[in-house]
Amino acid sequence: MTERIHNFNAGPGVLPEPVLRAAQRDLWNIGGSGIGIAEHSHRGKLFERVIAEAEQDARELAGIPDSYRVLFIQGGATQQFAMVPMNLLPPGRTADYLVTGVWSQKALAEAKKFGSCHVAVTGEPDGFTRIPEVDTIRYSERPAYAHFTTNNTIYGTQWKREPPVPAGVPLVADASSDLFSRPIEIARYGLIYAGAQKNLGPSGIVLVILREDLAELAPAGLPTLLQYRTYAKENSLHNTPPTFAIYMVGQVLQWIRGCGGLSAMAERNAAKARLLYDFLDQSELFRGTVDRDSRSLMNVCFRTPSEELDAAFLREAGRRGFEGLQGHRSAGGMRASLYNACPRESVEALVRFLKEFEREHRSAPVAAAQRA
Amino acid sequence: MTERIHNFNAGPGVLPEPVLRAAQRDLWNIGGSGIGIAEHSHRGKLFERVIAEAEQDARELAGIPDSYRVLFIQGGATQQFAMVPMNLLPPGRTADYLVTGVWSQKALAEAKKFGSCHVAVTGEPDGFTRIPEVDTIRYSERPAYAHFTTNNTIYGTQWKREPPVPAGVPLVADASSDLFSRPIEIARYGLIYAGAQKNLGPSGIVLVILREDLAELAPAGLPTLLQYRTYAKENSLHNTPPTFAIYMVGQVLQWIRGCGGLSAMAERNAAKARLLYDFLDQSELFRGTVDRDSRSLMNVCFRTPSEELDAAFLREAGRRGFEGLQGHRSAGGMRASLYNACPRESVEALVRFLKEFEREHRSAPVAAAQRA
Repeated sequence: MTERIHNFNAGPGVLPEPVLRAAQRDLWNIGGSGIGIAEHSHRGKLFERVIAEAEQDARELAGIPDSYRVLFIQGGATQQFAMVPMNLLPPGRTADYLVTGVWSQKALAEAKKFGSCHVAVTGEPDGFTRIPEVDTIRYSERPAYAHFTTNNTIYGTQWKREPPVPAGVPLVADASSDLFSRPIEIARYGLIYAGAQKNLGPSGIVLVILREDLAELAPAGLPTLLQYRTYAKENSLHNTPPTFAIYMVGQVLQWIRGCGGLSAMAERNAAKARLLYDFLDQSELFRGTVDRDSRSLMNVCFRTPSEELDAAFLREAGRRGFEGLQGHRSAGGMRASLYNACPRESVEALVRFLKEFEREHRSAPVAAAQRA
Repeated sequence: MTERIHNFNAGPGVLPEPVLRAAQRDLWNIGGSGIGIAEHSHRGKLFERVIAEAEQDARELAGIPDSYRVLFIQGGATQQFAMVPMNLLPPGRTADYLVTGVWSQKALAEAKKFGSCHVAVTGEPDGFTRIPEVDTIRYSERPAYAHFTTNNTIYGTQWKREPPVPAGVPLVADASSDLFSRPIEIARYGLIYAGAQKNLGPSGIVLVILREDLAELAPAGLPTLLQYRTYAKENSLHNTPPTFAIYMVGQVLQWIRGCGGLSAMAERNAAKARLLYDFLDQSELFRGTVDRDSRSLMNVCFRTPSEELDAAFLREAGRRGFEGLQGHRSAGGMRASLYNACPRESVEALVRFLKEFEREHRSAPVAAAQRA
């Protein structure tokens, strides 16, 4: 098969086709340099321009104030689960966590290794099927920071706006699955981190947006690469960074700009999600699994009435060229991830297929009854 | 320019052209899956095969015994500088370091954050221009491990064989710039790590070969991603790994196999280095900068009689399509990195250019004298 299929993977996810075409060209020879992007020195002029442009595009797209640093760090969000408390949680203080799913739980579990933590609110009693009401949040007294997960890939819920935090408390966000999918007001945050492999590029690179003063809080005894100051001081070039991954993030940011920026991207993403949720809302076979007000625009989770039918649907989907629709192993059912690069055409094709599957499987008992 | 030039970068370095061609194809659609390699789920069958084959090829090429684990870790060798002592240096014990250049010094400085360290030998008095004689090594009593740097990219020296260690002391090697450039006897080591970006692939991934029992020594309170056991238990898939970088390492390993394996690669590398060293040895203008017995087959460092002429040479080299010949900023002069993927043709072209430059600049004073 030489054609590409519909990719709904939760991450690594689909990449924009113009970015893939550029990468194919630039792997061999970028910008007429006679050398591929992955073979250029990270200390050379060409790569310096690549990383500077990626930063600049991120700044312009998201309106990142000058008092924030844009950092490129390895290790995925999982490494941030440790770096955040190691850098921002001093001895004797408490960090507050808003727990809305598996990834918040993992962030919390990692933070507990490094200091005192307080669960300000948890959606666990509701099976993480909704974002908690903000008036149920109970912060500790003077927390060192408050951490939340903007979008929950596994359960398919998403904060529509930032949770309120007490004055002076840095808000820390794991925005791995929705950063740059919509405009956000950076100044509300102390720190935002996002693994690139959903909306921003390939895996192997994390974009961190950090309020400058928070870069200096780490104890100097931490491993060099676990101190934010190392990246802030040396423009993410203390050691050899993952140059190809950073190049790809830069390409995706340019593509987002070409699409009209974050407002346009947000409209596009909302429209894609609406196509699917509107179908689910009227379907007699499929149903969404989360509270309507908490629905994620990135990960749409749904089910049929039975696990057997879910399995039959997934088998048929695979045959029809729809990849990545299986729900996370801890949630079951189905999940369609509609990140930035997922084309509207893929969602339209999915809805057509859902309708067809519904017709067949809704009519089956009717036909059987008619025969009887 | 659409043609590729001669790339002598010290890392990220040149990649094999067949690997680049495969990557161009597979970024769009790998193995007829309809999805590019960077867009596949790390939990899917396709990527599971990619990482399993990369491991298997590494095992077969290097003859890695079953009692060793092959791990893929982010953060570069710099993160290993911290992980090694955090995992292998228990309280109250001492780690021994053999210091042969800037990278050993950095590894040592990082280790000192986590425990007691002893310098078993240092080449600093000789300006790191030679590998110390083994009979000058003085280990501490019962070190937790002994760490050395197999090849020194900056000064261009290389251990021809492993330094001897006391019985029972794990030998730890930073082999970032020569792993898989020649056969090695894995069983002599406790742990070997290598950033991929010299001989094995793009930047953003480190290959770690670890004796199984050493994976379990880390205190459980360490960040999850800084414990070797996390990677050993979960086959380097605890969180989303840099899938494209691992794919590239796999491709390079296949390419090495196609070239005849590590013995053939070692012969090829030795022949390339010989071309250049033989020229330098008889040159009246250029000279190698390190002791003959310590010469690196990977990084050949050389100079003209003056910094001015070095600069003139580098300018002319750039114009002629020779990239990456500038010595490291801490060493000056010139350096040609001749990693696995550097074609013999590039070295031949470099020697031709060196000869030409020598003719011009040797004859200049003669001509001037004749005119006088």
